Amino acid sequence: MKKKLTHFDHKGAAHMVDISKKQSTERTAIAKCKVYMLPSTLNLVEDGKLLKGDVIGVARIAGIMAAKKTSDIIPLCHPLSLSQVSIDFLLISEPSHIEMKATVKTWGKTGVEMEALTAVSVAALTIYDMLKSVDKNIKIVDTHLIFKDGGKSGQHLSKEML
Amino acid sequence: MKKKLTHFDHKGAAHMVDISKKQSTERTAIAKCKVYMLPSTLNLVEDGKLLKGDVIGVARIAGIMAAKKTSDIIPLCHPLSLSQVSIDFLLISEPSHIEMKATVKTWGKTGVEMEALTAVSVAALTIYDMLKSVDKNIKIVDTHLIFKDGGKSGQHLSKEML
Amino acid sequence: MKKKLTHFDHKGAAHMVDISKKQSTERTAIAKCKVYMLPSTLNLVEDGKLLKGDVIGVARIAGIMAAKKTSDIIPLCHPLSLSQVSIDFLLISEPSHIEMKATVKTWGKTGVEMEALTAVSVAALTIYDMLKSVDKNIKIVDTHLIFKDGGKSGQHLSKEML
Amino acid sequence: MKKKLTHFDHKGAAHMVDISKKQSTERTAIAKCKVYMLPSTLNLVEDGKLLKGDVIGVARIAGIMAAKKTSDIIPLCHPLSLSQVSIDFLLISEPSHIEMKATVKTWGKTGVEMEALTAVSVAALTIYDMLKSVDKNIKIVDTHLIFKDGGKSGQHLSKEML
Amino acid sequence: MKKKLTHFDHKGAAHMVDISKKQSTERTAIAKCKVYMLPSTLNLVEDGKLLKGDVIGVARIAGIMAAKKTSDIIPLCHPLSLSQVSIDFLLISEPSHIEMKATVKTWGKTGVEMEALTAVSVAALTIYDMLKSVDKNIKIVDTHLIFKDGGKSGQHLSKEML
Amino acid sequence: MKKKLTHFDHKGAAHMVDISKKQSTERTAIAKCKVYMLPSTLNLVEDGKLLKGDVIGVARIAGIMAAKKTSDIIPLCHPLSLSQVSIDFLLISEPSHIEMKATVKTWGKTGVEMEALTAVSVAALTIYDMLKSVDKNIKIVDTHLIFKDGGKSGQHLSKEML
Repeated sequence: MKKKLTHFDHKGAAHMVDISKKQSTERTAIAKCKVYMLPSTLNLVEDGKLLKGDVIGVARIAGIMAAKKTSDIIPLCHPLSLSQVSIDFLLISEPSHIEMKATVKTWGKTGVEMEALTAVSVAALTIYDMLKSVDKNIKIVDTHLIFKDGGKSGQHLSKEML
Repeated sequence: MKKKLTHFDHKGAAHMVDISKKQSTERTAIAKCKVYMLPSTLNLVEDGKLLKGDVIGVARIAGIMAAKKTSDIIPLCHPLSLSQVSIDFLLISEPSHIEMKATVKTWGKTGVEMEALTAVSVAALTIYDMLKSVDKNIKIVDTHLIFKDGGKSGQHLSKEML
Repeated sequence: MKKKLTHFDHKGAAHMVDISKKQSTERTAIAKCKVYMLPSTLNLVEDGKLLKGDVIGVARIAGIMAAKKTSDIIPLCHPLSLSQVSIDFLLISEPSHIEMKATVKTWGKTGVEMEALTAVSVAALTIYDMLKSVDKNIKIVDTHLIFKDGGKSGQHLSKEML
Repeated sequence: MKKKLTHFDHKGAAHMVDISKKQSTERTAIAKCKVYMLPSTLNLVEDGKLLKGDVIGVARIAGIMAAKKTSDIIPLCHPLSLSQVSIDFLLISEPSHIEMKATVKTWGKTGVEMEALTAVSVAALTIYDMLKSVDKNIKIVDTHLIFKDGGKSGQHLSKEML
Repeated sequence: MKKKLTHFDHKGAAHMVDISKKQSTERTAIAKCKVYMLPSTLNLVEDGKLLKGDVIGVARIAGIMAAKKTSDIIPLCHPLSLSQVSIDFLLISEPSHIEMKATVKTWGKTGVEMEALTAVSVAALTIYDMLKSVDKNIKIVDTHLIFKDGGKSGQHLSKEML
Repeated sequence: MKKKLTHFDHKGAAHMVDISKKQSTERTAIAKCKVYMLPSTLNLVEDGKLLKGDVIGVARIAGIMAAKKTSDIIPLCHPLSLSQVSIDFLLISEPSHIEMKATVKTWGKTGVEMEALTAVSVAALTIYDMLKSVDKNIKIVDTHLIFKDGGKSGQHLSKEML
C-alpha cells in the first residue's frame, strides 16, 4: 500500500490534521543534536560554565522558550499545553562539540516530537549565535528524534537509547 | 591574545551587544542545511511538488516567516528590518536528501547570519514535521553559514561557495 | 428583556468572560469570505496553481497559522487548543473572485467562531498582499460565519449551508 | 506585456521581495472596512460608547496592535518600523453598520498597505467577537485600500477620497 | 530541611517543572499593584474616564492580553488555557495613585499566579506609557499576590483579603 | 496651559502618536526596580549564583527578550530597532532584596523608556516565578525611570543618578 502524507488532504491541500477523535494520553518525546566547533571555542564555553559567560545557561532558556513557541513556528503543528521541558548539555572534546538532549512531555491528543526537535534546534542556534564571533566554522548536525512514547503508533526508540 | 565572547560583559553577564557605534551597511548572509530521509520519502516529496501535497512550498513559507521571528527566538539577537528573504530547495537522490539554502539581506548595523540559519533550520523542521508520519529516521544535518558580507570583519566565504 | 454584551461586566469594563463553569464539548465553526479582483488577476492565480507561483498555497498556510494566533490578536478571546484547521479555496469567474471557507474544531469550553473568521480574514489579506502589485482594486467582502456547533446555544446554520 | 506577481521568483517560488535598492521615503496608507449588524446591535454599541461597555475602544486597540503584528501574520510582508497608526470609527444607521478607517505611516523602503488593511480587519473581527453573543448575522464587508502615497508607483487614490 | 528551588534540577539546570502527575483542578489567583503619580496626572486620568482619552480602558485591554502571553514572557512558565481574566482599577487621591487588581482562573495542573502578576504589571506599564509625557516621576509599586486557590499547597490569602 | 495626553487625539481616541516629523537621534533610557523577599530566599539566590540554580541568569535573559517584545505588549508603543540591552543585578541584604537596572539604547525617532521599564519588570516577574515556591510574600517595588537621553525634551535624570 502506498504511504500517504497526513498533512495534506486527498486534493493535496495542506491542513492541520483532525485529531479530535484521538485519545488523550501522556506523551513524551526526546530529541538530540550536536554543535561542532573548534577545540579552542569549546574551551571558552567550558570556562564560562564555571567562571563567567554562561553560554549553556542562555541556550537552555532559549530552547525551553522555543518549545513553547513550536506551534507558532511550524505551520501545521497543533497548539499544545506542555507539562515538562528540560534540556541537557554534554561538552565532548573528541571531536570538540556540544551535544544537546531535550525531553518534552504533554497530556494530549498528539505527540511532542516537534517540540523536542524545536527545543534542541533553537538551543543549538543560540550557541551558534554566542560563539560565532570567535569561530567561523560552527556546524549544527544530527538533529533527530531518539525516543517517543504515548501515541497510537506505540513507543519509538532509536538504537542509541538501548 | 585571548579571544572573548562578545555576548558577555567583563563580569560574564549576558547582554545584547551595543551596536550603536557600528556603521549601517548592506549586509547579506547565506546559510545551508540538509534533511536526510528514506528514498521512498523523498519520492513522496517529489510527487507532491508536481501533483499534490506541496511539502517544499509549506517549508519555504515557514522558513521565511521564521527569519522574521529570529530576534524573538534567539535571546541576544538584535531586532532587524529585513530587506530580502528567499530559500532554495534541491532534491538529491544519492544519498536521498533535501538541501536548503536561505539568503537574507538587510540594511543595518549588524549582520543577518542568525536570520539565514534560523530560516533553514525552521524550513528543515517543517519538512520533518510533514514527513514524520511516513519516515521515523529523518535527520537534519550540516546547518552552517556559507556566505556573509557587509560587516567590519569583511566577507566570509566557505569553500563550497568558491 | 434587554440584550447585554457578555464581554463587559455590569460596570461596563471589558473582561475575558468566565467560562470555568461551561461544559467541555467538541465544537466546530465554519466561516467564509471572498476576495474580488480583476478577471486578469484571477487568471494569474489560476496559472500559478498549476504551474508556478502558488498564491493559494501561501494563503492557506497564512490562514492556518493565523487561526492559532487568534487569542493573541483578538483581545477578549480565550486561548484554545485547536484540534483541526482546514481552508478550502474556490476560484469563481463570474464575477471574478476567490471564495475561502475555513473549518476549525476544538474540544473545550468555548467556541471557535473567531478562529474560523480569523483564518479566512488572514488568508484573504495574504491573497491581497500577493496580488496588490498587479491589481489596485482588490476588495475583501462577506466575511461571516456559516456554521457553528457544540455550544449551549446549539447549532447555528446559515441559509447557504442548507 | 504580461503582468507578473513580484512575490514569486522566475521559478514560481514564493519569496520576500528584495527591497534593498528601493528608496527610503515617507509612506502612508489608508484602508477601510465595514461591519454590518442589526439596528438593535448598533444601538448597544452606541450606548456603550457613552455609558459603559466601550466596544469601539477595545476594537481600536486591537487594530493598532494588529498593525504592529502585520509582518508576523502576512507571510511575505517585510518587517517595518511604523511611525503612526490611528483608526477612526463611524456609526451609521441606514443601513446599520460601523465603518472603520485606519491610517498608517512609516519611513522606509516599502509601503504600509498591508498594515492599514490588517488594522481595519482585526478591528472588525474584534467588533464581531464582542457582538456575536447578541447578533448571529454580523458580516464584515468592503475591506479595501483607499489611499497610498510615497512609493515609486506614486499616489494611489480611490474615488471615495476625491 | 533546606528549601529548594523547584525550577532547577539537582545539577542546578533550569527546567520547566514536570507537572504531568499533578491533579487538574480549578485554580484562581488574584494580584495587585499600584501606580503612583502627581495629583494633576491622576486628574487627567479621571477626566478621560468620563469624557475622552480612556487611559484605564487601554490599560485593561493591555493587561488582559498580557495574561495570555505569560508563558511566552516568563521563561519557565507552563502554557495554560485561561478560563477568565478581569482587571479592576481604583483611582485613589491620598496619596494620588491608581490601584489595579487582576483575577485569573484556569482549569489545569498548575496555578495562575504569574498570569495575574503579569496582567497587573503590564496594565501598570501601559498606564506609565500613556502618562509619561505629562509626569516624569511615575512609579509602579507593590506588585504582589493577594490570593491563590486550587493547588496542592491549599489556599493562600494575604492579610488584605481578610 | 492645560497638559494633554499625547496618546489620545482631540476627540479622546487612543492612537499611536505620529513621530514621522521627529529627528532620529541616539536615545538611551535606564530603569530600575526591586524585588523584596525573605533573607532565606535571598540566600538561595546567592548560593545559586555561585553553585547551581542561576536565578539571576534566567531573569537577565527574560528581561532582555522582553525589551524586544515591548511594542507587542504595550498597545501604543512604536516598534523600534534596539541597539543595546543590558541588565545589572545587585543582591542587597538590608532589607533583603534584589535591585535590577536595565539600560536600553536605540537610534530612532522615539525614546526607549518603555523598553527599559519592561525589561526590569519582566526580569522581576521571572525572579518572582522562580522563588514563589519557597517564599509566599515576594513583592516587586519601585519600578521607575532613572535616566533618559536623546529626545527633544532633553536629558532626564533622577536624583539617584547624581
